[in-house]
Amino acid sequence: MLDLLLSNIGLLVTPRGAKARAGQQQGSVSSTARAAVGIEGGKIAYAGPGCAGLAARQTLDCGGALVTPGLVDAHTHLVFGGWRQDEFALRQGGAPYMDVLRAGGGILSTVARTRVAGLGELVARGKGFLGEMLGFGVTTAEAKSGYGLDLENELKQLRAIRELGDQQPVTLVPTFMGAHAVPAEFSGRREAYVALVCDKILPAVAEERLAKFCDVFCEDGAFTVAESRAVLARAAELGMGLKAHADELAAGGGAELAAEMGCVSAEHLIHASDAGIRALAGSGAVAVALPCTSFFLGKPFARARQMVDEGLAVAVATDFNPGSCPCLNLQLAMSLACLRCGLTPAETLTAATLNGAAAIGLASRIGSIEAGKDADIVVWDAPDLDYLFYRLGSNLARTVVKAGAVCADRPAQPNGWRRCGQA
Amino acid sequence: MLDLLLSNIGLLVTPRGAKARAGQQQGSVSSTARAAVGIEGGKIAYAGPGCAGLAARQTLDCGGALVTPGLVDAHTHLVFGGWRQDEFALRQGGAPYMDVLRAGGGILSTVARTRVAGLGELVARGKGFLGEMLGFGVTTAEAKSGYGLDLENELKQLRAIRELGDQQPVTLVPTFMGAHAVPAEFSGRREAYVALVCDKILPAVAEERLAKFCDVFCEDGAFTVAESRAVLARAAELGMGLKAHADELAAGGGAELAAEMGCVSAEHLIHASDAGIRALAGSGAVAVALPCTSFFLGKPFARARQMVDEGLAVAVATDFNPGSCPCLNLQLAMSLACLRCGLTPAETLTAATLNGAAAIGLASRIGSIEAGKDADIVVWDAPDLDYLFYRLGSNLARTVVKAGAVCADRPAQPNGWRRCGQA
Repeated sequence: MLDLLLSNIGLLVTPRGAKARAGQQQGSVSSTARAAVGIEGGKIAYAGPGCAGLAARQTLDCGGALVTPGLVDAHTHLVFGGWRQDEFALRQGGAPYMDVLRAGGGILSTVARTRVAGLGELVARGKGFLGEMLGFGVTTAEAKSGYGLDLENELKQLRAIRELGDQQPVTLVPTFMGAHAVPAEFSGRREAYVALVCDKILPAVAEERLAKFCDVFCEDGAFTVAESRAVLARAAELGMGLKAHADELAAGGGAELAAEMGCVSAEHLIHASDAGIRALAGSGAVAVALPCTSFFLGKPFARARQMVDEGLAVAVATDFNPGSCPCLNLQLAMSLACLRCGLTPAETLTAATLNGAAAIGLASRIGSIEAGKDADIVVWDAPDLDYLFYRLGSNLARTVVKAGAVCADRPAQPNGWRRCGQA
Repeated sequence: MLDLLLSNIGLLVTPRGAKARAGQQQGSVSSTARAAVGIEGGKIAYAGPGCAGLAARQTLDCGGALVTPGLVDAHTHLVFGGWRQDEFALRQGGAPYMDVLRAGGGILSTVARTRVAGLGELVARGKGFLGEMLGFGVTTAEAKSGYGLDLENELKQLRAIRELGDQQPVTLVPTFMGAHAVPAEFSGRREAYVALVCDKILPAVAEERLAKFCDVFCEDGAFTVAESRAVLARAAELGMGLKAHADELAAGGGAELAAEMGCVSAEHLIHASDAGIRALAGSGAVAVALPCTSFFLGKPFARARQMVDEGLAVAVATDFNPGSCPCLNLQLAMSLACLRCGLTPAETLTAATLNGAAAIGLASRIGSIEAGKDADIVVWDAPDLDYLFYRLGSNLARTVVKAGAVCADRPAQPNGWRRCGQA
């Protein structure tokens, strides 16, 4: 007997497999009309046509709607103190980010406000964000530290992420990012800060098992390729998976480093060189495109179309953070990927589900609707994938199922996409 | 005794006056910290600092939040049959709109589906849209006909708009737009269709008092300047206010015609010439920018910054319609106006409130929070105007008050914008 049956699915659309799809495969999703999904023990027990003979304790009639895997936001800076709308007008006036950073604004002002924030305070507001993200259809999110920049506060951020993972439905994957910026107290002594990260903070994080991944901001003005390599190498020794913020502001060898170090993902990549893209494709890393950041800052978008065409697996995430992207709406990131980065709706769905999962090492467990995977599912107020991208600006997530439990649910909009005038 | 008191307003921000603000004035909103708004008989009785001595039957504690006028969406095609996500992939592939139109797709496919839709069906789905718009903070919207393109179905659309105005809280301003396209049955006989509009449909619309305005699609491929002039002249004789879709696809003299005819507004204006912009500024018309359409279609944005600088009053609206802009989220249009068209947050607020009201002839009644105006108000989950634009992609409308009644209300997000880490 199933625990839950999603019946009367108009169209079930999902990528397939346990690995990131690369190249042409990124767009080859499976579409099943008049489908059903059966759930048992929080896992998908059946996904396919019809629902004859499927008995369940509870049935959710999907009313002919589109069903996809739950969304995966593979890149967020979820836990932080304060906001920085004060910088917004400044940047609207054209000040480059590195100028803001050098003036003690930017990330360092968030560091100051994160340090004075209490753990409970960080957890409470994180819970608010995650509730909103769940309502947009996000069932799994990565969350980075990197606003503590000392032992105590990096651990505090990661403990907040752990608590948040326990206290609400969205699965959180924690990433340590002590090498996000050099804190003010190490100004002029950057080697000492890198040493602190490698010798003190990373081992403490590993001992408490607080992070699955280690990420570094490899960029001129943040950490050099050599410094980034040192941090990632130490994290690898400690058993963490590796990630890198690369080539966001300029092509600086970040993509190549990510490939060299066997990173599971490289993020941003706005200015990644052709050689960097090829290197990543060869390494099997996932390229995480963050189009909301480009949009918010008025920067170019990562060349996601070219990346897919060159065989890279592309994920799309929000980059939610209080500076360069105060947007936690993954649907908007997906709209941008489709409307501005040239991905098809199917490629974009894969980017925000299976490839997002691959970017955080979970592609064998989530990211597609297949028997054995976690029952993380969105029922959309939409009949098909084109409609989902076409209805820009509306949150079409109607019912969100997390590990088999209905976590967010709202009434269908009357006649929203029904065949008005098509009788 | 007041009916309703909005107390504990952290910041009350509103444009002022009964006329569209032009030029530098567009950005000169009034900001009052620690304010209150008193409401009586659906009208604003008091708006200003403090709330000492204000007695009311009901008090809404705004919790220190930002309060602004209700939003005005001055350009929508709200009532239509069907959707056109099938054209979405086509256009993603680069087909120009006029090709889609000539192939019998585009607007004419919506006309076919609107003609077969029943009045009740159109009202039901319109109500769904308006509920969502209200949740985004929209308290007044313009709604155009123009998918009927014959006597019976233009009247059906306008009657649906009238019923919708009676059945839900958002004030609707009806616009007749029979000159939206030449219907298929008049192919090769465009003069006959223009004559039908002028001699039959417009008088019938006027007799039933179904439209406050008449709009025309003045564009190569739609209606010529001469045809548009004829339709507008007839509408003026019948006592309607005038509007024009102008220079959306190319500079074709639409802005100049709008100025010549004394239109209350000219819409789109993506390709308006410098001369057209100056003519509009001289005529006192409002320029209605529709940035979601540009964004959805990948087109340039109207030069809103330049328009404001040249003394034009600029409004921002959605253009919600099933073809070129299936987006009804006015907050997204405002984000685009600010992030992509170079308007400041204050200018954008004016564009989506007082100037929107001016574009539909209601600036003496709505669009600002001043004694005597309708009590159309939004309490935002935000502390200030910068935050509202900074938090891209989240719907921050918390409480929407329409004519003094609380129509949409949701709990504040815990610690969303509170001073976490700023103790």
